[in-house]
Amino acid sequence: MKQISILGSTGSIGVNTIRVVNANPDKFQINYLSAGSNAGLLIEQAIVNKPKAVAIADSSKAAQVEKALRDYSIDVLAGKEGILELSSRRDVDLVINAIVGSAGLEPSIYALNAGTDLALSNKESLVMAGEIINDLLDKKQLNLFPIDSEHSAIWQCLMGENLKNIRKLILTGSGGPFRTFPLEKFRTITPEKALKHPTWNMGRKITIDSATMMNKGLEIIEAYWLFHVPPEKIKVVIHPQSIIHSMVEFVDGSIKAQLGLPDMKLPIQFALSYPDRFPVAWEETNLAKIGQLTFEEPDYHKFPALQLAFDALKRGGTAPAILNVVNEYAVYAFLEEKISFLDIPDLIEEALSGLKIIDRPKLQDILETETMTKEFVKGKIDQEKSN
Amino acid sequence: MKQISILGSTGSIGVNTIRVVNANPDKFQINYLSAGSNAGLLIEQAIVNKPKAVAIADSSKAAQVEKALRDYSIDVLAGKEGILELSSRRDVDLVINAIVGSAGLEPSIYALNAGTDLALSNKESLVMAGEIINDLLDKKQLNLFPIDSEHSAIWQCLMGENLKNIRKLILTGSGGPFRTFPLEKFRTITPEKALKHPTWNMGRKITIDSATMMNKGLEIIEAYWLFHVPPEKIKVVIHPQSIIHSMVEFVDGSIKAQLGLPDMKLPIQFALSYPDRFPVAWEETNLAKIGQLTFEEPDYHKFPALQLAFDALKRGGTAPAILNVVNEYAVYAFLEEKISFLDIPDLIEEALSGLKIIDRPKLQDILETETMTKEFVKGKIDQEKSN
Repeated sequence: MKQISILGSTGSIGVNTIRVVNANPDKFQINYLSAGSNAGLLIEQAIVNKPKAVAIADSSKAAQVEKALRDYSIDVLAGKEGILELSSRRDVDLVINAIVGSAGLEPSIYALNAGTDLALSNKESLVMAGEIINDLLDKKQLNLFPIDSEHSAIWQCLMGENLKNIRKLILTGSGGPFRTFPLEKFRTITPEKALKHPTWNMGRKITIDSATMMNKGLEIIEAYWLFHVPPEKIKVVIHPQSIIHSMVEFVDGSIKAQLGLPDMKLPIQFALSYPDRFPVAWEETNLAKIGQLTFEEPDYHKFPALQLAFDALKRGGTAPAILNVVNEYAVYAFLEEKISFLDIPDLIEEALSGLKIIDRPKLQDILETETMTKEFVKGKIDQEKSN
Repeated sequence: MKQISILGSTGSIGVNTIRVVNANPDKFQINYLSAGSNAGLLIEQAIVNKPKAVAIADSSKAAQVEKALRDYSIDVLAGKEGILELSSRRDVDLVINAIVGSAGLEPSIYALNAGTDLALSNKESLVMAGEIINDLLDKKQLNLFPIDSEHSAIWQCLMGENLKNIRKLILTGSGGPFRTFPLEKFRTITPEKALKHPTWNMGRKITIDSATMMNKGLEIIEAYWLFHVPPEKIKVVIHPQSIIHSMVEFVDGSIKAQLGLPDMKLPIQFALSYPDRFPVAWEETNLAKIGQLTFEEPDYHKFPALQLAFDALKRGGTAPAILNVVNEYAVYAFLEEKISFLDIPDLIEEALSGLKIIDRPKLQDILETETMTKEFVKGKIDQEKSN
């Protein structure tokens, strides 16, 4: 019986993680759950799954959660401190970090510092602090299991293979809702349009990231830190059906791909079951029924996020952290209709050329960069609005 | 430096094996070569590669080979006995059996009996004597590496995986030249038409087998003996582009595929380099350039060979050997325009229902079944011609 924590349990990945756990009740015990601000769902999840404790980041909801769980002997922690304390608990075998955005960084570090293996859906942890996390993994001899479908695919393709034999990692991307939308009309993109993803049903932040293709950009950086290949060995290919989740090409020209219907339960379960696989009766992938899989080159002109990500990765230091923080802030500003779709990459470019980049940053440097970057982008947005 | 023998060195796979070896001169030493009847090419290969000995099955060519190699201190063996003696030589690390057809069976057994690992292109060895070969592998703790592109794909997909987690093996097939040809016109199929394979450039026997889809049928049986899954877990999907070479579906719904351009050098080299991979500069597989991969269900009505193979596999004993021998004989009769394309599966069906099937056969039973089956099918063909 694997003892687990689920951080970010009320988000899209968190909810699917609980589904996977509930489908394998003899294999997992949920010891801890944490949420951002969705008190109602956290309470429900806690009552069903009976963890030892829960944490809610939004302190103003703590009283509500405490009241609802009073009769269940479930401790309730609150605020950022509560999340970090929960992340550090040592009576778990695996922490699943499904927190959305840069808020997930510190919980990842706290879990690893506590000596616990990490299943990572929060790609921002690696994007912002890949080097720190890799150093921790080395020092403490811990495992990091990717949950992102692309990285899970690559990880599965690399089983039994020698990393030195990688010629290329080939990340597939659906191309998002604007793959065939003309660039001249990008000015007209509204949040409503951008939230309609053609293949994956995901949270709001990642859905906008798919529309700008910054999601693929963040995945490029994530792949770099997970699989230790130089940026020039990471390629992106557009595959609108989202059936092939990613591929690895080896030095002998052989390519391995992992495929299946677009359903996050599969990579989530694999991160939990590895090195084993658990039988499930999810919908079958019938290629004859699907009929065709198509592929095309990504359009770097329409989607500058891809090149920005490669550039930030090659620049190194806190550049990827800056890219991520601006993007995150800009996406929410776009969702609130404060900026346009095209402003998102523009703001990233401005921040990367305008802000100080620190090499070999410590966690404190990254957190300070985060604060500085947020102020920078907030200032830019306010300035633009007042123009 | 791996010491190797190449049996069937003048056929399509043999020639490609020598190309692979010559591209890696520091890694392999060819100790032995054998051919069926192509004395000219065997002589050339011997002069370039300087083996210790060669063997030629067609004894009438032995004098020619001896004369040509007189000055090279290369021994020349001849006839079936010569091939079997060469197959048994113990000063090799790996025997590559690229002999075409049932003539390859005994050399496989002799190599294993001599305690040598086997890289197998000759699928007939497993189709006819899968149980005997598996018993030998177990008893002598030897390795069998598949060279068929489909089985190499499955083998690569299974690296690092537990065989118990296989849900399905999915063999891909191009569908051959008659995939979209109407069944009503199958009577008009000539050897010339059948020899035009849409994607693979192969020998004559296997090209006809691709046209009837018996090649896929034989591969079903081969997969059974290589990967130890029941027949109902082996599926065939038609994939006309021949880019995905085969797939494995696991119990959790994850599918792994191995892909690349249709070039036998890749699976040959992998069987030689395993568990490592050697860098090569063959043509790159560019999926964006290829554009699309399509899939469809196989047409069991147009291609009865598939069901015949499943039936023979389920029946067991010498049934697959009978299927293979009739097919081989019938293919050559078709190439000589003695029978029609549609006669091939008909003759197999007749033999399987008319001939005695022996359970748990010994090698002697299989060889006797081979003789009996050849007589049966020869009789049928002569009878048909005289009608």
